[in-house]
Amino acid sequence: MTHPSTGSSGPRPLALTMGEPAGIGGDLALRVWRDRDTLGGLPPFVVLDDARRLTALAATLGWAVPIVRVERAEQAGEAFSHGLPVLHRPLAVPAHPGRPDRANGPPVRAAIDDAVALVRQGQVAGMVTNPINKDVMQGAGFGFPGHTEYLAHLAGHAPDAVAMMLVCPGLRVVPVTIHVALADVPRLLTVDAIVAAGRVTARALRKDLGIATPRLAVAALNPHAGESGRMGDEEERIICPAVEHLRAEGLCVTDPRPADTLFHPAARATYDAVLCMYHDQALIPLKTIDFAGGVNVTLGLPFVRTSPDHGTAFDLAGTGRADPTSLVAALRLAAHMSTMRASPWEDRP
Amino acid sequence: MTHPSTGSSGPRPLALTMGEPAGIGGDLALRVWRDRDTLGGLPPFVVLDDARRLTALAATLGWAVPIVRVERAEQAGEAFSHGLPVLHRPLAVPAHPGRPDRANGPPVRAAIDDAVALVRQGQVAGMVTNPINKDVMQGAGFGFPGHTEYLAHLAGHAPDAVAMMLVCPGLRVVPVTIHVALADVPRLLTVDAIVAAGRVTARALRKDLGIATPRLAVAALNPHAGESGRMGDEEERIICPAVEHLRAEGLCVTDPRPADTLFHPAARATYDAVLCMYHDQALIPLKTIDFAGGVNVTLGLPFVRTSPDHGTAFDLAGTGRADPTSLVAALRLAAHMSTMRASPWEDRP
Repeated sequence: MTHPSTGSSGPRPLALTMGEPAGIGGDLALRVWRDRDTLGGLPPFVVLDDARRLTALAATLGWAVPIVRVERAEQAGEAFSHGLPVLHRPLAVPAHPGRPDRANGPPVRAAIDDAVALVRQGQVAGMVTNPINKDVMQGAGFGFPGHTEYLAHLAGHAPDAVAMMLVCPGLRVVPVTIHVALADVPRLLTVDAIVAAGRVTARALRKDLGIATPRLAVAALNPHAGESGRMGDEEERIICPAVEHLRAEGLCVTDPRPADTLFHPAARATYDAVLCMYHDQALIPLKTIDFAGGVNVTLGLPFVRTSPDHGTAFDLAGTGRADPTSLVAALRLAAHMSTMRASPWEDRP
Repeated sequence: MTHPSTGSSGPRPLALTMGEPAGIGGDLALRVWRDRDTLGGLPPFVVLDDARRLTALAATLGWAVPIVRVERAEQAGEAFSHGLPVLHRPLAVPAHPGRPDRANGPPVRAAIDDAVALVRQGQVAGMVTNPINKDVMQGAGFGFPGHTEYLAHLAGHAPDAVAMMLVCPGLRVVPVTIHVALADVPRLLTVDAIVAAGRVTARALRKDLGIATPRLAVAALNPHAGESGRMGDEEERIICPAVEHLRAEGLCVTDPRPADTLFHPAARATYDAVLCMYHDQALIPLKTIDFAGGVNVTLGLPFVRTSPDHGTAFDLAGTGRADPTSLVAALRLAAHMSTMRASPWEDRP
């Protein structure tokens, strides 16, 4: 299928945002393009970044990565075989690895905005975001905890219409509460929040990953799932009612199960994703199983967005030693998810 | 070395308590004895249990396991090659797999008491406990959350003088708070509790496991270790002061680290044990890595005590299908730890 606004017969590329330019995003973009054959092939992508700084970074690293400036994303599908396609987005000030500068907050944000615009116009198949730095972004007036919330905002969605899913081979986890103090988790955990996360997750597993009848496991909040209220009552008071609600909508959802019994290989074979009650409950098992290869996926957006599951890693920026495993997995998952759609932007009620 | 009260030249056996007789303890004791050769050998042990019920259970299961009644534990070392040595402790009423009866609470408790007495007398090298059932025990006036607290009581120790360590190949975890609601964890987490757990753990790693300079990793309570207070202040307020305190005692202890970064293989190679702040933070990674083989060790007692890390599994009791991996590991670890001691009971200031 050729989208009306796509004038090229090449494959529709993914958009990769620059992320924090003092971080490892540039290293990784260069590296995965350089290693694309030994990696077993990559979906074509176009980087929204400063072409000059990528050229200089490749030279510093001694990597033979031609930077191919393209004017339109649709040219990237073909250009990808000759070099790393870049939609030039100039930085405000030169980037220095490991030394972030708030002056570059606006171009970092603009790269995200532009990627969303490109996917809305059908010029790219989806977007992959490199990590940003909170201090820089907040200094640039970016009032969101992170990409997930900002992208929901750009899509005109309420925050609870989207969910963060972390994926590695053999495990998908969705934390219902995310970047909050552990002490705040019991207060923030509501029937509505669990139902919203379950709904978004089931829909995305069906629509974006082609799982006809998604099986959701639900982690308990308390040890031993509370042991009938002896160690906490959130299971009975909040999680079970949410489970009943989701079942009434026809979804396949387990009772809340002790979190320590959910993540060994035999348990993982029984579900397609786990609704977790808090950040570490989701991230501990994922990063124990696959520290380097996890992918962050925003569910519930009108478009595909994935991200490597690591930070800016200032200590590694500019060294060429950052591990590209997660970016490779993020690109592949985004490409896979984009094949499930009739068009890159699909508003779904 | 021959202990004064040991009149036999055979190896000093371990004591294995019956645990809840409606659970899988009996199945497992019979099974590991039957399979001891294919398992690659087991340290000799003597079961404190009703000899008649074990004989009947072996017959029901069709397993050729001769039950050898011994009068004194010291006879078990030699008897072990002919059959399963049992110190007969009669039940109050016959045990029915899967159907616990509170009338058997007192003999279950007596088996624990007797095992402690045997280790105190130097007749056994240490003790391994089969799982008990809380309802049965509380019905029998047993006012303790579990074995750990009861054994501390029998040893005349304050509860915080002991700690629970969970062990599997490549990972040891010690939860500072254990069987409490998640909402109560922040309130129960104190500098004193962390310091006590760190002290007991370091000492046990040195004395019981022969690790000259134990390296303790410390898990943060909040996601991303609180991100400098943006998501919780327990790291700065409680955990860091505890770490400083332990360092001032000469121990090798990390800063609080994000819990999701602590459990992948490369991270595990950097420490000997992790102090975890709550139950699931410790148990999720352990059971993700090794669901069937975890061992529970009580640190800080005057004697060696291990336990398989599973419950009574009423649904499997009497079927012969319960997985013996954890009991095998518990027996082997107890035997290993007992070789580090001059005598089975050692009061250590």
